[in-house]
Amino acid sequence: MVTYLADPDPHATQKTAPDLVKFGVIGYGYWGPNVVRNLKQLKNTDVVAICDKSPSSIQRVQKAYPQVQVTGDPFELMRSTEVDAVAVITPVWTHYELAKAALENGKDIFVEKPFTSNAAQAEELIELAARKNLKVMVDHTFLFTGAVRKIRQLLNENALGTLYYYDSTRVNLGLFQHDVNVVWDLAPHDLSIMDYLIQERPEAVVATGQTHLNGYEDVAFLTLYFPRKVIAHLNVNWLSPVKVRNTLIGGEKKMLVWNDLEADEKIKIYDKGVTVTSREGVYNLLVNYRSGDMWAPQIEQVEALQRELEYFVDCITNNENPINDGRAGLRVVKMLEAASESLRQRGSLVYL
Amino acid sequence: MVTYLADPDPHATQKTAPDLVKFGVIGYGYWGPNVVRNLKQLKNTDVVAICDKSPSSIQRVQKAYPQVQVTGDPFELMRSTEVDAVAVITPVWTHYELAKAALENGKDIFVEKPFTSNAAQAEELIELAARKNLKVMVDHTFLFTGAVRKIRQLLNENALGTLYYYDSTRVNLGLFQHDVNVVWDLAPHDLSIMDYLIQERPEAVVATGQTHLNGYEDVAFLTLYFPRKVIAHLNVNWLSPVKVRNTLIGGEKKMLVWNDLEADEKIKIYDKGVTVTSREGVYNLLVNYRSGDMWAPQIEQVEALQRELEYFVDCITNNENPINDGRAGLRVVKMLEAASESLRQRGSLVYL
Amino acid sequence: MVTYLADPDPHATQKTAPDLVKFGVIGYGYWGPNVVRNLKQLKNTDVVAICDKSPSSIQRVQKAYPQVQVTGDPFELMRSTEVDAVAVITPVWTHYELAKAALENGKDIFVEKPFTSNAAQAEELIELAARKNLKVMVDHTFLFTGAVRKIRQLLNENALGTLYYYDSTRVNLGLFQHDVNVVWDLAPHDLSIMDYLIQERPEAVVATGQTHLNGYEDVAFLTLYFPRKVIAHLNVNWLSPVKVRNTLIGGEKKMLVWNDLEADEKIKIYDKGVTVTSREGVYNLLVNYRSGDMWAPQIEQVEALQRELEYFVDCITNNENPINDGRAGLRVVKMLEAASESLRQRGSLVYL
Amino acid sequence: MVTYLADPDPHATQKTAPDLVKFGVIGYGYWGPNVVRNLKQLKNTDVVAICDKSPSSIQRVQKAYPQVQVTGDPFELMRSTEVDAVAVITPVWTHYELAKAALENGKDIFVEKPFTSNAAQAEELIELAARKNLKVMVDHTFLFTGAVRKIRQLLNENALGTLYYYDSTRVNLGLFQHDVNVVWDLAPHDLSIMDYLIQERPEAVVATGQTHLNGYEDVAFLTLYFPRKVIAHLNVNWLSPVKVRNTLIGGEKKMLVWNDLEADEKIKIYDKGVTVTSREGVYNLLVNYRSGDMWAPQIEQVEALQRELEYFVDCITNNENPINDGRAGLRVVKMLEAASESLRQRGSLVYL
Repeated sequence: MVTYLADPDPHATQKTAPDLVKFGVIGYGYWGPNVVRNLKQLKNTDVVAICDKSPSSIQRVQKAYPQVQVTGDPFELMRSTEVDAVAVITPVWTHYELAKAALENGKDIFVEKPFTSNAAQAEELIELAARKNLKVMVDHTFLFTGAVRKIRQLLNENALGTLYYYDSTRVNLGLFQHDVNVVWDLAPHDLSIMDYLIQERPEAVVATGQTHLNGYEDVAFLTLYFPRKVIAHLNVNWLSPVKVRNTLIGGEKKMLVWNDLEADEKIKIYDKGVTVTSREGVYNLLVNYRSGDMWAPQIEQVEALQRELEYFVDCITNNENPINDGRAGLRVVKMLEAASESLRQRGSLVYL
Repeated sequence: MVTYLADPDPHATQKTAPDLVKFGVIGYGYWGPNVVRNLKQLKNTDVVAICDKSPSSIQRVQKAYPQVQVTGDPFELMRSTEVDAVAVITPVWTHYELAKAALENGKDIFVEKPFTSNAAQAEELIELAARKNLKVMVDHTFLFTGAVRKIRQLLNENALGTLYYYDSTRVNLGLFQHDVNVVWDLAPHDLSIMDYLIQERPEAVVATGQTHLNGYEDVAFLTLYFPRKVIAHLNVNWLSPVKVRNTLIGGEKKMLVWNDLEADEKIKIYDKGVTVTSREGVYNLLVNYRSGDMWAPQIEQVEALQRELEYFVDCITNNENPINDGRAGLRVVKMLEAASESLRQRGSLVYL
Repeated sequence: MVTYLADPDPHATQKTAPDLVKFGVIGYGYWGPNVVRNLKQLKNTDVVAICDKSPSSIQRVQKAYPQVQVTGDPFELMRSTEVDAVAVITPVWTHYELAKAALENGKDIFVEKPFTSNAAQAEELIELAARKNLKVMVDHTFLFTGAVRKIRQLLNENALGTLYYYDSTRVNLGLFQHDVNVVWDLAPHDLSIMDYLIQERPEAVVATGQTHLNGYEDVAFLTLYFPRKVIAHLNVNWLSPVKVRNTLIGGEKKMLVWNDLEADEKIKIYDKGVTVTSREGVYNLLVNYRSGDMWAPQIEQVEALQRELEYFVDCITNNENPINDGRAGLRVVKMLEAASESLRQRGSLVYL
Repeated sequence: MVTYLADPDPHATQKTAPDLVKFGVIGYGYWGPNVVRNLKQLKNTDVVAICDKSPSSIQRVQKAYPQVQVTGDPFELMRSTEVDAVAVITPVWTHYELAKAALENGKDIFVEKPFTSNAAQAEELIELAARKNLKVMVDHTFLFTGAVRKIRQLLNENALGTLYYYDSTRVNLGLFQHDVNVVWDLAPHDLSIMDYLIQERPEAVVATGQTHLNGYEDVAFLTLYFPRKVIAHLNVNWLSPVKVRNTLIGGEKKMLVWNDLEADEKIKIYDKGVTVTSREGVYNLLVNYRSGDMWAPQIEQVEALQRELEYFVDCITNNENPINDGRAGLRVVKMLEAASESLRQRGSLVYL
C-alpha cells in the first residue's frame, strides 16, 4: 500500500475487505471516462456498472466497455449488490443526494470535487459514513501529482524554513460552467492543494471578483489569512488569453516556483532570501539579500488519478482513512462558502 | 512638441517662456543621476545645481559634472535665481516640504512618485502651483514607455472592445524600503499606468497583505472596482524569488498580455474571446469561444525618462499642463491612502 | 476530398474505387497502434487484419480489437482477399520486402518513413506500383500538421520573399535505434518537410557527425545546397539533455520561426530583414535593417496522422497520386544515402 | 592577482614592473569606449592617449575625457614615452601592422579578436613579443564571464564526465561587417571559448555556408573534429529574426545548457544520460536512460572586460603570461583560416 501522511481514522474498526472492489460509476461526461479507464487498469478492482442520463454517453460506454452494465438511473446502480463502491462524477449540486443514497446503500464513495454545495451537506455525509463505517474520498486529484508530493516532501523536511506566503495563479480562457462561478470551478484545486501543503487552517477569507458574461463571477481573487502571518492568495480567471498555472511559495530559507505547464522542470527551488540583521530603528534597518543556486528536482511522472484511485482501493481494503477524506472535502467547501460570502460583500473579511 | 492626450489646463495663462530651462536637482542617490544625465542631454535645458546631503553623492556629482554647483542645503538651491525648475528626487516623506518651498520660490517642479504622503499635501501643492501659475509634473515614468503608449493607442482605437479587467503582477526580491510598505513602493507604477489607460476613476479599493520582516507589508494584493464592471487587480511582492512584470488586460473583442521583461515582444494581442450567444436560462446558455491569431506590435525603443523630461520642458515652455500633473499624482495618492486604510482593516471595502 | 498541391499522376488511369477500403496493418509496436486507431475512426475505411511477430503485441491487438484478424505471418495478411491496402509500420530494413509483396498481391501501400534502405529499392517499388496502378504513400506525417500546412501556404503566397535559408534543430535524449544512426532516425522528418516546403531539389549534401555509444552516429549535422543560393541545415542529436524542435526560415521579406513544442504559438513570422541599398565598394556598402511587428497565425489543431490517412483513402478512392508518394519517399532516401556517404568521408561534398 | 589556469611562460624573465601602467588606445568606435571606461576604473592603470581617425570619435573622447591626449596618428601614440601598453581596438585587417609597430616601440599589447588576418602574422607577432619580452593579450572577453568560468570549473572537476560534443548557436539580425564574413565576425567568440573549455586541439574543420547579400557568407556552419570522438559544431548567422546564444555540452555523466540571454539562470546542468549496458549484437543492445535533477548554479555577475583588463595589468606587473595570449589568438586564427578554406570548397575536410 502507498503510504500517505494521513491522520489516524478515529472511526476505523475491523471490516472484512473484499478480494475485489467492484465500482459503480455515476457520470460519464468529461471526467468520468478517465475514472473508469483508471479503475479498469487497477488490480483487485473492477467497474461493473456505469450510469449516465445522456444517450450519447451510454453509447460511448457500450462501445468502449461492452461487458459493463449501463443504466440511466443512479439509484438502480446504487441498490445493486454487485457494487461495493460508488464514484460520483457529476455536477456539484447533485453530489449530496447521490452520495447520501450510496452511503445508505452501504457503498464506499469517491466524490468529485468540490465535495458538496455547502458545509451542512458535507457534515451530514461525513457523519453518515462514520456511522456506517464507510470510506469517503473527495477527488482532490492534484494531491497525487508528482509535483505536489515533491513540494509536500520539501515542506516536511522544512527545506523552505518558516513559511511566508502561498500565491497561485490559475487562469485560462473558459471553460465556462453553467451552474457555478469561477471560484467554485477553479479554486477547489488550489484550496485542496494549499490545505494539504500548509497543514494549518486559515482564519479568514477576503474575496473580490467581477461578473461579465453569464451572471457568475468569471474573474476572482482570494486572500486567506493563516496563523503566524502566513498569507495565501489565489487568482482565478476564465477570461485570460493565456493559460497560467503558477504557484509561488515563499519561505524564510528558500523559495519555490511551481509551473505546472512546464513539461520537465515543474518545480524550481531558489536559494534566495532576505534577512533583517539589525532593527535599531527604521533607518538603521539592515537587510541582507541572499541569491544562490536554483535547483529543479526530478518529478515522478505517474498519472495522478491512477495513484489516487489505487490509494482509495487500498484504504477500503485496509480500512484506512484517506488523507482526502470527507473532512478534507468539508474544509474546502467551508473556504468556498466563506469566499462566496465575501464576494457578495465585495471583499469583506469573513472568518472561518 | 510631443503631443499627449492631455486635459486642458484651466489655470493656463500667458507666461514668458525662458529660452533655456535651468534645473536644480534635489537628491542624487539611485534615480537622481538618471534625471541629471537625461536633462543634460536635452536641448534648451541645463542642470545648474544639485543638492544631496551625503558626502559621497556630492563627490560623485563633482567627478561627473565638475561645472555644476553642489550643495547640501536644498533651500539654498531653491532660492537661487539661476534655477527655473526643481526636480525633487528624494524619499516620499520629504516631497511636500521640498515641493512647497520650490513653488513658493517660483520654480516649476518635477516630483518623484508617489507625489506626496497624503492627499491633503497633494491638494495644497496643486492649489499653490495653480495660484502661482507654475507647472507640476509627477514622475510617472512608465506612461512614457513605448509599451504603455502602444497600449493606450490600442485602447483609444477600441481594439480590445469593452474592457473587462486589468490584472498586474509586479514581484521580485527586494528592494526593501525603510519608510514605506510594498504598496507605496511598487503599486504607484501600476496605479499611474492604470489611471492613464483605463481613463476612469475607480470607486473603491480592497487591499490585503502581510508583513513578515520589517514591520511593513512586504506582500500585498489590491482590487479596484471601476464603473461598468471593470475590475483591476495588483499583486505586489518584495519576497518573490523570480522577477515578474506581467499585465493582462481583457476585453470583449481582444485580450492583451504585456510582459515588460521581454526584450522584443513586450506586448502580445490575442484575438481570443468568449461570447454568450443565448441566455434562455442557465442551462441553455451557449458560450462561444473564439481563438485566432496573436500579434506582437513593434514597440518604440526610447528611454522613457528622456521623453518625459523633454515633455516637461515643453510644457513649461509652451505653458501646457502635463498629463502626469499634480492631479494625476493626487489620484494615485488617494488610491494608496485607500489601500492603506483597507490593509489596516484586513481587506475591507474603502470607497474613494 | 481534401485538396493538396499534388503533382499530376502520369500513371493514373480509371480504376473502380471500392466502397470501403479495408486495411491490413503490419507492425503493432510503437506507431502501429496509432495508425490502427486512426484508420478505425475514418469513414469508408476499416482495419480487417493486423500482423505482428511479438506475442505481447498480438495480445494487445486482441484486447483492443477482438473482432480484427491477427497473424504473425505478414504474407498471410497480404494474400488475404479481404485486404485492399497494406500499411507497413515496421523497421526500415523490412520495408522493401514487405512493400514489394504487398504490391505484388495487388494492394495499395502506406509505408513508414524512411521509404526504403536505399534508392534502388525505392525505384523498384515505384515502378512496380505504377505498372500495377497501385498507390504508394510514404508516411511523411509532418506534411499534414497545421504548422507545415500554414508555412507552405505562406511560402505559396510568397510572404517571405526570396528564400535565404532553412535551419532546423531536432534534438533530444534518445530514443536510440538499434539498426540506424540518428540521421536515418530523425532527419527524414526534416528532409520530407524541407522537400515539401522548398519545392526545389538540393544539389549536394555535406554531413558531419560522431558516434559515441553504439557504433552509429548519435550526433550529426547536415548541410544541403539548393539552387539560387538557398541553403538548408539540419542538427540532429540523440544526446541532448533538452528537447528542441526548432526551425528558422529566412527570406528577403520576412523571417519565420517554427517551434513545434509551443502549445499555442508554433509559428512566428517576423517582419524583419536586411536590405543592401548601395554596393559601391565594400566600405560604402549601406545595409538597412528593418524590424517590425511579429505575428503568430492561428494553427489548425487536427491530428496529422488522421488527416494523412484520410487523404490516402481519398487518393485510392479517386485514383489520385498523393503528394507524399513513392517519388517523394525516394527523394528523401536519396538525401539520406548522400548524407551517409558524406558522413563516411567526414564531411565531403556529395552531389545528388 | 586573479589566478587563472595559465600555461607557464617560457620566455618570462625579470622585468621591472611600473607602478602605474599607462595605456594608449587605438580605435574609439563601438568597443573602444568600453575598453577606455574599464581601464579608467582600474587601480594602478591610466589611459593617457587615444587615437582615432574619425573627427566625431575624437570629439566624443574630448567631451568624455578632456585630460586625455587625442591623436589621429596611431604611430605618434606608439612612439610616446608616456605609453606603456597599447590596446588595438580596430578592424582585423589593421591588427598586424599596428600591433607590430607597438611591439617594436616596446609596448605590451592588448589586441581585439580575431588576433590577425592570418596565422603567419600571428606567429610573427608572437615571436617579436617573446624576443622583446612583451606581453600579448588577445581580447577573448568571453573567457572572463562568470558563465564560462563556471563551465570551466565544472569541466575541471570532471562533473560532465567524458566529453561527447560541444554545440553552439550564435545567430541574430546583423550587424553586417564590411570586410569579413559571418565566420570571422561571430565564430571567434565560440572558437576561443571552445579552445579554453575543451583544452584539446581540433584535428580538422568542415565549414559550409552561403552568401546572400554583400558577397560575404552571412550564414555558416562549422564542424570541428577533436581527438577521442569529441565533436564541436557552430551555427553562426547574420540573418536570423531572433537572437540566440545557446550552447549545449554533452558528457557521459551530465549535460549542460548555457543560454547567455537568460538573465538569471544562464547555465543549467542536467543529470541526464544514456548508458549502453550490453553489446551482444545490435538487437540485444540495452540502452539505459537516466533522468534526474537539474541544477542552475549561481553565476558571478562582474563585467568580463573589467576582469580581463585587470588580469592583463596583473600579467604585465607580475610578468606572467596570460591564458589568452598570442598563442591562444593564433589557435583561433588557424581555425578561422581552415574554416575559410573549407567554405571555399563547399565543405571539404581541412586538417589543422
